[in-house]
Amino acid sequence: MIINDAVAQLRKGSMVLIYDGDEREGEADIIFHAKFVTPDKIEKLRKEAGGLICLAIEPMIAKRMGLVFYTDILASSDAEIKEMECTKTAYKDKPAFSIPVNYKGVYTGITDNDRALTIKKMSELAENEGDLKKELIADFYSPGHVFLLIGRGIENRKGHTELALELAKKAGLKGVMVLCEMLGKGKALSKENAQKYAEENGFVFLEGSEFYD
Amino acid sequence: MIINDAVAQLRKGSMVLIYDGDEREGEADIIFHAKFVTPDKIEKLRKEAGGLICLAIEPMIAKRMGLVFYTDILASSDAEIKEMECTKTAYKDKPAFSIPVNYKGVYTGITDNDRALTIKKMSELAENEGDLKKELIADFYSPGHVFLLIGRGIENRKGHTELALELAKKAGLKGVMVLCEMLGKGKALSKENAQKYAEENGFVFLEGSEFYD
Repeated sequence: MIINDAVAQLRKGSMVLIYDGDEREGEADIIFHAKFVTPDKIEKLRKEAGGLICLAIEPMIAKRMGLVFYTDILASSDAEIKEMECTKTAYKDKPAFSIPVNYKGVYTGITDNDRALTIKKMSELAENEGDLKKELIADFYSPGHVFLLIGRGIENRKGHTELALELAKKAGLKGVMVLCEMLGKGKALSKENAQKYAEENGFVFLEGSEFYD
Repeated sequence: MIINDAVAQLRKGSMVLIYDGDEREGEADIIFHAKFVTPDKIEKLRKEAGGLICLAIEPMIAKRMGLVFYTDILASSDAEIKEMECTKTAYKDKPAFSIPVNYKGVYTGITDNDRALTIKKMSELAENEGDLKKELIADFYSPGHVFLLIGRGIENRKGHTELALELAKKAGLKGVMVLCEMLGKGKALSKENAQKYAEENGFVFLEGSEFYD
């Protein structure tokens, strides 16, 4: 089964492509497990995928870190524009965004080296047994250049965030996954071109539907 | 004078490179005025610059829109992690980030077409005379995929945000400028390579110091 191939690739540190479905975003994301991050992988994402480089975190770990959705932060703030909170996107889901972070050891935060370092340190934090919230506050700041996403579980939302985290779970890996949208000319990269890219790079191409069949 | 060349190019809708200085970020950003945005320009930024695609807004317009700094939103929220607020970066400045937005007419928000549309609509909003805050809330949502930055004026901060907005002012254009960091292998693109890129593309290369001489 293709999902088993994806799990095997994920454990080896390889990238995997996940296409959510024609009826949702209609978009393929490159994903890989955060512990395998390197500056070269970040370079590949920005040059060949082109979307935002995000870090999806499973609900239990996010909770231990004290992470909440960005929308909850905006809505509970004293900003006059808090009504701008997005409750539903055009593809009918709530956004997965939490806060954007940088590890305190970075310089600007945006370079390949800096983003890889932030992701590496977040991955290490997720492996910890201690007080994750205390360590998050001690070692990271916000706003930064790595966009944290919180999963809602595939029973609640079928986005790339949830699919990537579900794959990590099947692989027996901690729920911290790097994600980046694949863009084409003007629009999301077409499913056909994403499949072609996966083939050329030796990456598994997974569809959201394969998680439910 | 090179700054006059940059002003002339800006008015024509061309991109300009601004290098802040060796003692600050040591980074070149591609900038252009928001009203000249096109999906092709967004594609060029993501493929050839590689950083975050941001929209810098001058303080007076930001104020009329009701925009505040992201750090103020975080600090005034009820999030347990609000202490993560960044008060000073490694290059000694406060961050310029306000909120990330999408125009309500987008689909995912991340594609070249969607980011260009969000920027175009923000630029049109800045030209308006009415209640900008009301229109911002009516037509845009947050979180989105275009990162708004608020200028603090070059007398207070000498970042790309302030330099780009100062250039817009000299050009007699509204203070809404698109910015994207130029990345190289692992690190920020070197000053020499940024100069070479500017030359190859026929873009003016401006240094922060030229604003004060």
